[in-house]
Amino acid sequence: MAATAALRPDEAREQMAPAFPPPPVTARPIDRDAWIAAFRHVRGETERRAAPLSAEDQQVQSMADASPTKWHRAHVTWFFEQFLLREHLPGYAIYDERLHYLFNSYYVAAGPRQPRIQRGLITRPTMAEVTAYRAHVDRAVEALLDQASESGLEAVLPILEIGLYHEQQHQELLLTDILHAFAQNPLGPAYDPDWQFPAASAPSGQIRLDRSVAWIGHDDDGFSFDNESPRHEALIPAGRIDKALITNRQWLAFMEDGGYAKAELWLSDGWYAGPGEGWEAPGYWRRDGDGWATMTFGGVRPVDLDAPVTHVSYYEADAYARWAGRFLPTEFEWEVAARNGELPDAFGLVWQWTRSAYLAYPGYRPLPGALGEYNGKFMANQFVLRGSSAATPVGHARIPYRNFFYPHQRWQFTGLRLADAA
Amino acid sequence: MAATAALRPDEAREQMAPAFPPPPVTARPIDRDAWIAAFRHVRGETERRAAPLSAEDQQVQSMADASPTKWHRAHVTWFFEQFLLREHLPGYAIYDERLHYLFNSYYVAAGPRQPRIQRGLITRPTMAEVTAYRAHVDRAVEALLDQASESGLEAVLPILEIGLYHEQQHQELLLTDILHAFAQNPLGPAYDPDWQFPAASAPSGQIRLDRSVAWIGHDDDGFSFDNESPRHEALIPAGRIDKALITNRQWLAFMEDGGYAKAELWLSDGWYAGPGEGWEAPGYWRRDGDGWATMTFGGVRPVDLDAPVTHVSYYEADAYARWAGRFLPTEFEWEVAARNGELPDAFGLVWQWTRSAYLAYPGYRPLPGALGEYNGKFMANQFVLRGSSAATPVGHARIPYRNFFYPHQRWQFTGLRLADAA
Amino acid sequence: MAATAALRPDEAREQMAPAFPPPPVTARPIDRDAWIAAFRHVRGETERRAAPLSAEDQQVQSMADASPTKWHRAHVTWFFEQFLLREHLPGYAIYDERLHYLFNSYYVAAGPRQPRIQRGLITRPTMAEVTAYRAHVDRAVEALLDQASESGLEAVLPILEIGLYHEQQHQELLLTDILHAFAQNPLGPAYDPDWQFPAASAPSGQIRLDRSVAWIGHDDDGFSFDNESPRHEALIPAGRIDKALITNRQWLAFMEDGGYAKAELWLSDGWYAGPGEGWEAPGYWRRDGDGWATMTFGGVRPVDLDAPVTHVSYYEADAYARWAGRFLPTEFEWEVAARNGELPDAFGLVWQWTRSAYLAYPGYRPLPGALGEYNGKFMANQFVLRGSSAATPVGHARIPYRNFFYPHQRWQFTGLRLADAA
Amino acid sequence: MAATAALRPDEAREQMAPAFPPPPVTARPIDRDAWIAAFRHVRGETERRAAPLSAEDQQVQSMADASPTKWHRAHVTWFFEQFLLREHLPGYAIYDERLHYLFNSYYVAAGPRQPRIQRGLITRPTMAEVTAYRAHVDRAVEALLDQASESGLEAVLPILEIGLYHEQQHQELLLTDILHAFAQNPLGPAYDPDWQFPAASAPSGQIRLDRSVAWIGHDDDGFSFDNESPRHEALIPAGRIDKALITNRQWLAFMEDGGYAKAELWLSDGWYAGPGEGWEAPGYWRRDGDGWATMTFGGVRPVDLDAPVTHVSYYEADAYARWAGRFLPTEFEWEVAARNGELPDAFGLVWQWTRSAYLAYPGYRPLPGALGEYNGKFMANQFVLRGSSAATPVGHARIPYRNFFYPHQRWQFTGLRLADAA
Repeated sequence: MAATAALRPDEAREQMAPAFPPPPVTARPIDRDAWIAAFRHVRGETERRAAPLSAEDQQVQSMADASPTKWHRAHVTWFFEQFLLREHLPGYAIYDERLHYLFNSYYVAAGPRQPRIQRGLITRPTMAEVTAYRAHVDRAVEALLDQASESGLEAVLPILEIGLYHEQQHQELLLTDILHAFAQNPLGPAYDPDWQFPAASAPSGQIRLDRSVAWIGHDDDGFSFDNESPRHEALIPAGRIDKALITNRQWLAFMEDGGYAKAELWLSDGWYAGPGEGWEAPGYWRRDGDGWATMTFGGVRPVDLDAPVTHVSYYEADAYARWAGRFLPTEFEWEVAARNGELPDAFGLVWQWTRSAYLAYPGYRPLPGALGEYNGKFMANQFVLRGSSAATPVGHARIPYRNFFYPHQRWQFTGLRLADAA
Repeated sequence: MAATAALRPDEAREQMAPAFPPPPVTARPIDRDAWIAAFRHVRGETERRAAPLSAEDQQVQSMADASPTKWHRAHVTWFFEQFLLREHLPGYAIYDERLHYLFNSYYVAAGPRQPRIQRGLITRPTMAEVTAYRAHVDRAVEALLDQASESGLEAVLPILEIGLYHEQQHQELLLTDILHAFAQNPLGPAYDPDWQFPAASAPSGQIRLDRSVAWIGHDDDGFSFDNESPRHEALIPAGRIDKALITNRQWLAFMEDGGYAKAELWLSDGWYAGPGEGWEAPGYWRRDGDGWATMTFGGVRPVDLDAPVTHVSYYEADAYARWAGRFLPTEFEWEVAARNGELPDAFGLVWQWTRSAYLAYPGYRPLPGALGEYNGKFMANQFVLRGSSAATPVGHARIPYRNFFYPHQRWQFTGLRLADAA
Repeated sequence: MAATAALRPDEAREQMAPAFPPPPVTARPIDRDAWIAAFRHVRGETERRAAPLSAEDQQVQSMADASPTKWHRAHVTWFFEQFLLREHLPGYAIYDERLHYLFNSYYVAAGPRQPRIQRGLITRPTMAEVTAYRAHVDRAVEALLDQASESGLEAVLPILEIGLYHEQQHQELLLTDILHAFAQNPLGPAYDPDWQFPAASAPSGQIRLDRSVAWIGHDDDGFSFDNESPRHEALIPAGRIDKALITNRQWLAFMEDGGYAKAELWLSDGWYAGPGEGWEAPGYWRRDGDGWATMTFGGVRPVDLDAPVTHVSYYEADAYARWAGRFLPTEFEWEVAARNGELPDAFGLVWQWTRSAYLAYPGYRPLPGALGEYNGKFMANQFVLRGSSAATPVGHARIPYRNFFYPHQRWQFTGLRLADAA
Repeated sequence: MAATAALRPDEAREQMAPAFPPPPVTARPIDRDAWIAAFRHVRGETERRAAPLSAEDQQVQSMADASPTKWHRAHVTWFFEQFLLREHLPGYAIYDERLHYLFNSYYVAAGPRQPRIQRGLITRPTMAEVTAYRAHVDRAVEALLDQASESGLEAVLPILEIGLYHEQQHQELLLTDILHAFAQNPLGPAYDPDWQFPAASAPSGQIRLDRSVAWIGHDDDGFSFDNESPRHEALIPAGRIDKALITNRQWLAFMEDGGYAKAELWLSDGWYAGPGEGWEAPGYWRRDGDGWATMTFGGVRPVDLDAPVTHVSYYEADAYARWAGRFLPTEFEWEVAARNGELPDAFGLVWQWTRSAYLAYPGYRPLPGALGEYNGKFMANQFVLRGSSAATPVGHARIPYRNFFYPHQRWQFTGLRLADAA
């Protein structure tokens, strides 16, 4: 979303000293200013993304998978209050105990919560009241960072850090959720009339992968989510992986060859969830005369044939690969190709489906306590995506990062690249 | 709602010359000022009812049966634009043709429309934009009333009149819908902290009905809906009807006697729709220590034992009557009792369930065109309620008025009075 | 079904002394032989209807509204055991206490029971075991009738009588349920290859009804269900009622005029339940080249244009009447016309939808105890049908008889005749 | 099921020369007699398993995942007719073309078919007619095997072979499906009153797995399904795997420790699908005084504490492993342990859940044509089970065999053994 006016970062500042990511939590001495800058940067980015949205826009929940903008803004704030301030800031007064129920997402260990599908029913606190809640927590977090002893900070920084990455994940959802909401409106409102999808480098050719036993997973002193560990070996068979993402032009060839009408191309579950429910094109596509248009952040626009295809589900990506007589890569193949530094368009355009189910790495243990629910409890029925998308905040993505969605979901910026066996 | 600050009418003005109802459409000469005053009164009342609600409040749709405040405000405006201005104001420019799809409710003959259960997804136009739409239409209607020839007005007034009564119906729904939305919020927001339920006169005794053949239905030169016609004869058996409404105190006795747990008291459909879904008290009631509280316009408050019971469904009213060894009156018995001028608390407290299914009167014909869909197409599976409620606008209710809801619905202010066979 | 080979009664015997209906329960002295004959006749008729069906046929439950043949045969037997033998035959040993749970239908007061939609899952007892259960109960009932004292019989006969009428109702359901099951089978099996729909007399003209106050409801010393009482007065407006039933030929004209495609002809609930679910013709109709065929007891056959239309829901009957610019009669109009002895084709062809909701007659009280659940608890959301059908057992139908179904249901032999206001 | 009287094989004959599995399809010269014996053995086993079931039992479909016995018996017969006889037996007359629609399961390429959830509605053909269909196809297959030229047989044997393994899979389903049906019957019928669950060897200790790169998948000249190929390398981390299956006694300890009540032990999807739907014990368990009973082929019996736990879903197995602080093995770890010849109780008791999602092996290609739908199109949302169960036919299971079910399913004989990281 770098090109979005509303979200355009302070480019001059960023060029001098990017505020995010912050230093490793283990770096000593602790650079308080850098952490405060990172905190302000992330908190500010959320508000920049929400800024073009009216109170009504921020209220709506357009499906069970999505959440209101207002809820995102409050939930990430609750996260800091619940896991950071409640325990680590002496004398901190909870802003409003009643918000705890409303803005817990899925942390069972943190207590009962508003049913997910009813998040859109909570009109109060209003948008403005959530802004006040955010300011209250911001002040408290900054005071904590300012005043804590060095040893106090040591305990605090790992929680602060996960809170920042957590908020960034919600920044991406905030955009994809509002796009889904706007797509339900026959008026097709624009989030940013000037918005442009970032240009792909669109290289040709393939990267060769030799048979190897490779190390997979988190391996440096920076941040990682628990699902990227333990680092472990995986056997990579010989093969090749495309440098380019699949484009809308290629996808249209699939459609014109009856791709959505041939059951033999589809997984059985996908056939029922997709074409069986009327799918005949990627998400948000609609017929436009002889061609196709699609809902974008800039409103409804003609499909750009040279852009990477997006808003396709795993089922569609898998059917496309079968139609092409090829394969989706595994998440390990993708990671090895990316580690070798050769994988163009890996980040910033579309998340790339892999044919790897989202499962625990060997010996995986979730974090203790409520934060252990962050990733581990979703390890069934989902597939891994790698890379990042045009909606991912700058500085958030990393090579070993594992994103995951159900195979029918397609409201994220999800696309694909293909691979071949040796 | 007369006691609601936000809705409090200009009492002085009303006492001098109530603006509503307007003169009969057949009165000559036509009193333009009276019609303009009525129009302004009704349009203003909608805005007075919406005034305490934030943009977020006006956005939310808390169930399929309810609509957002913003939608109500726009839909009643569309009604005037579609049925009055489009045809009868020469040179009128439709405000925005795209709103037609969004704010048509159920008039199939008026074209396709936004699916009812997705009304809450339309964040744009915003609350403020709907306000502008209302102002545009208000100006046009007033111009029409101002400028039309006498013969032009003759064609226009019947449509204007139904538009006013239509808007009043939505004024009632606006309040009951937002109460339902607020009831979903664990914070229990108050629409008007000073709100009080109007006091019932709570008389004792019964009205005796002699066997008779009575005239039923609309019978004067004032406004009526088409479902009140044709006026026709009905046989009224001898019987008695209570002067008082059933109170919360009486309802608690039913509950304490196991009323919600004894299948033999319930209609089969009601048993599954009510206790089978966990009902154990009227709508919005919640346990409060040893007693009960309920959601009101003033927020969550202890149940007032002396007030009429409300938010009960037909199934509950019917079970209560069976438990009491008595009957709900028919809509004809109610009408005859009310015509005799003897039925206290008939209006302004709670709609009163009758045991009459909502069906056509003998020889009934709906209005021609789209307005024929107003009432006639709902004549199955619903029951008639008579009277009016605390949320009904002043001047709206009349003796032959037939309200109707499905027997499981209870988000309206619905209560009951009982009757006996002779 | 008189023409069905499998069901063909012993005509000679019947002509001499029809076994059903039995004498009035109040007739003295009690004619034991007549009652035993009636019992044998009814019990035998059930078995004659089941005889063409295999064990597999008798097992299947094709939808929630239908029941397996085997269940019908056992349930009516349980009814005699539960309400007659358990209490009135000293020393009677319950055949198998476990059957009580399986074969109670909906009598809450008689205890818990197998969920209705799971009746088809009970493979044991088998068809043969149900036959043995029937024989056991038959012997016991006959012994009771044989041996009871005169005063004992006085208590027993009213229960026996309702049991016989109850079993006859299930005889009709047995046939309509198996027809529904066979209609799900692409092979379209025939229940009776020689089956013919009884010929209608198809008269022309109308019966004139003068304005009157008429007595409605049960009025002789024969059997009646509790919902036919109390006998009461109703006001009949002047009008006319057709002598003939609507035919398939007439229905085709409605279809060809777009009857299933014009929303303005339909009740709102009907539009969604019918055309909204893909209905384009009566139940069981399927396209057959340029014409239409339909599933019958004789298998799939071309639609007989001169036969009365059947398998139409209330929603369809109502839409047809609106299309024709006419009305369905009320149940009272139907009853008055039939009492005057002038209503041809009232019985033995198709049940006739009326525009009367199924409600209690004024002052209605259900029977005490479990049998009070027989009719009363269904008095919401259904419409009354009058007459009887080709599947109704001989001797069962009477003029004041009130049948009732939900307005979307159409697996019964349901048709219509029309009426006009004066 | 070896102990089942109805299924007891001819032990003497089997000891001399087991008829199944047949020789490899590549063995030359082709041993016709051995193939005919294998065919008769498998076909006969289906009938032996169906023999204790009445026509009613064979009709019922108790849930969407299950099929009627009659359908199984006919479908496996259709498989031979469709894939073997139709193409390879000159002059073969299809028994009844209409059966094609009824008994195709999910082969889209083989044409449209009876909706899965409506298999239980097909009462005709009857059980006896299916027996005749089986006999017709048996004769034709045997004639083909008898008369075909050597080169003809070469084309035929691979199809025959997959048909035999296919029928064996349905033999297992036949039993698990009827157990589910019987479990819905409050009478708890016994399939075989003398049935006993096979005794587990219940060894103690663990098998050590060293870090290795192991060959995985089909590797001999015997039969395999396409999903066991290609044979490929996998990296096996160092670890340990239990020799024993988890027992009911161990499972009770999990239950008594609140295993079904602690959300932190469960995958999120599992928490909603399992405890969220009321699960509090394995499938078919019911409280029995202070203890537990369970539905078995011998009827309802007390839970045998020393037997392996069965009828647990993946979600339950996964929660148990988390509770125990241990892991389910991967399918590769299981296969390596079994190949080393050290894995007791691997076969014949319960299928063992692994933590491997059911996915394609690297380079996997399904068979061409309709048979390519056999396995490949189910490669999403399911987990792999290894081994075999008490319901698996003798001779069917092999080490590389991959069974797969959805993680919520538990009507198969599914249990678990645990593993540890090194």
